[in-house]
Amino acid sequence: MTSFADQLTERIATLGNPTVVGLDPRLPQIPEFIRKKAKSPAEAVVIFNRGIIDAIADLVPAVKPQIAFYECLGPEGLQAYAETVKYAKSKGLLVIGDVKRSDIGSTAEAYAQAHLDPASALAADAITVVPFFGGDGIRPFTEMAHKHGKGVFVMVRSSNPSADEIQGQTLGDHLMDEHIATLVEGWGRDYIGKSGFSLVGAVVGATYPEEARVLRNLLPNQIFLVPGYGAQGGTAEDVKPCFHANGTGAIVNSSRGIIFAYEKDGKPEAYAEAARTAALAMKKELEALF
Amino acid sequence: MTSFADQLTERIATLGNPTVVGLDPRLPQIPEFIRKKAKSPAEAVVIFNRGIIDAIADLVPAVKPQIAFYECLGPEGLQAYAETVKYAKSKGLLVIGDVKRSDIGSTAEAYAQAHLDPASALAADAITVVPFFGGDGIRPFTEMAHKHGKGVFVMVRSSNPSADEIQGQTLGDHLMDEHIATLVEGWGRDYIGKSGFSLVGAVVGATYPEEARVLRNLLPNQIFLVPGYGAQGGTAEDVKPCFHANGTGAIVNSSRGIIFAYEKDGKPEAYAEAARTAALAMKKELEALF
Repeated sequence: MTSFADQLTERIATLGNPTVVGLDPRLPQIPEFIRKKAKSPAEAVVIFNRGIIDAIADLVPAVKPQIAFYECLGPEGLQAYAETVKYAKSKGLLVIGDVKRSDIGSTAEAYAQAHLDPASALAADAITVVPFFGGDGIRPFTEMAHKHGKGVFVMVRSSNPSADEIQGQTLGDHLMDEHIATLVEGWGRDYIGKSGFSLVGAVVGATYPEEARVLRNLLPNQIFLVPGYGAQGGTAEDVKPCFHANGTGAIVNSSRGIIFAYEKDGKPEAYAEAARTAALAMKKELEALF
Repeated sequence: MTSFADQLTERIATLGNPTVVGLDPRLPQIPEFIRKKAKSPAEAVVIFNRGIIDAIADLVPAVKPQIAFYECLGPEGLQAYAETVKYAKSKGLLVIGDVKRSDIGSTAEAYAQAHLDPASALAADAITVVPFFGGDGIRPFTEMAHKHGKGVFVMVRSSNPSADEIQGQTLGDHLMDEHIATLVEGWGRDYIGKSGFSLVGAVVGATYPEEARVLRNLLPNQIFLVPGYGAQGGTAEDVKPCFHANGTGAIVNSSRGIIFAYEKDGKPEAYAEAARTAALAMKKELEALF
């Protein structure tokens, strides 16, 4: 079984594109013509996502549905999440479920089953998790991922303004996120694939480039999943420190900037083409870095 | 609108019982006769939970479904979660959704809508959240809770062995969980009800009684939701520091110890009666404290 890190690394190299498209289908931003023809908000989400996926599947290695935007539609929304995951996989995309789950070990086992066990309708190829509970809350995810060729991205530094309130606190001579990085390195050490990357990756926000430089050094074998590009203010120059010098080791997410790109030119019927154009533009911006 | 903290405080006083029953329906532990008659695992969960709820609704102020044990059954499991929440409310119980959600602000808004907006099928009376992202990831939850008379319990100290790996790290002269406590106090300051408690509570594990003493002093206006009692090793004596000296300000959870109490005497048909007996025994243990 090829590890998730190896699969992702290979797809990035083949496509020459380290972009992940965030599927955050905020209902009010889904074009009205779709919401009108759909029988339910959940169906509108599925129709919208299919259009985006068809438009970008040959361009990017992965998509990242943010489960909160499905959960807010109730159980039907979770069904739409499951259908989105399935459809994206059928188009050859890797799917990173942005679920940010975390709990004590016995509960984390149930979350791992929900999101990483291939028998589950909600199972993605990799998920995001939060390290707040320490190692025994992470192990069920990494073990399940190892068993099924899946991946886990642990939150190390989030992209939001108040990230410093916990992640940026000082422990002696280093910051909390650097301490978390050393934990993540340990959690991933036994799971390094042929690509040199572990199935345990790290989430590092585009909005803290100085900190990203430090974290990159602490985590040589981690793929960085980088949120915060575009709508949140991160630029191509900002994400550069998340990559190794040879241009590998990171995947940069854009959600609103791609899937709702149509809002700029005001042609909702052409939302999928607008998404493709935005994805191509982002590819160019990232290509220019290395 | 009565605030959640006031509602909970009143129900605890009326029943003379600060117990919350954790509805963690681990499938293999649901009696076989239920799993056989149910058409699906999700239906077995609903039948099992109804039996428990009927048996304890007049004894305890609240139940706490752990969403991970529903999520692992896929979208149908989330439907079972929604039905459980609805049924428990119909029996007069307050429902604390143990969802431990967390993300950056714009995503936390969607989670708040999912779990605290009365229009959502998944909405409980209060939920647990994780403070990893700092204040802008918490505010959407507290604002939604304030708007709808709901509550939020922020993780401060979890009950698991590896909690120290992050929460127990030293920042100058205090621990990370104490730093989080000062944040939680700030997040809850504007939302203190007639009972003297804020809609923003704190999760403090029964397994760290020394730390609970410190946190209790830092958080005079927070109701503590206390996991880790019973199956995880916490005793009545261990939870005592989570209460104020007058016996108010905390609610103690037991999940496995109550809902699967039948396993001790081996009579699965009488699982509901066994749960009631275990809940009564726990009430007595806690009564003896004050």
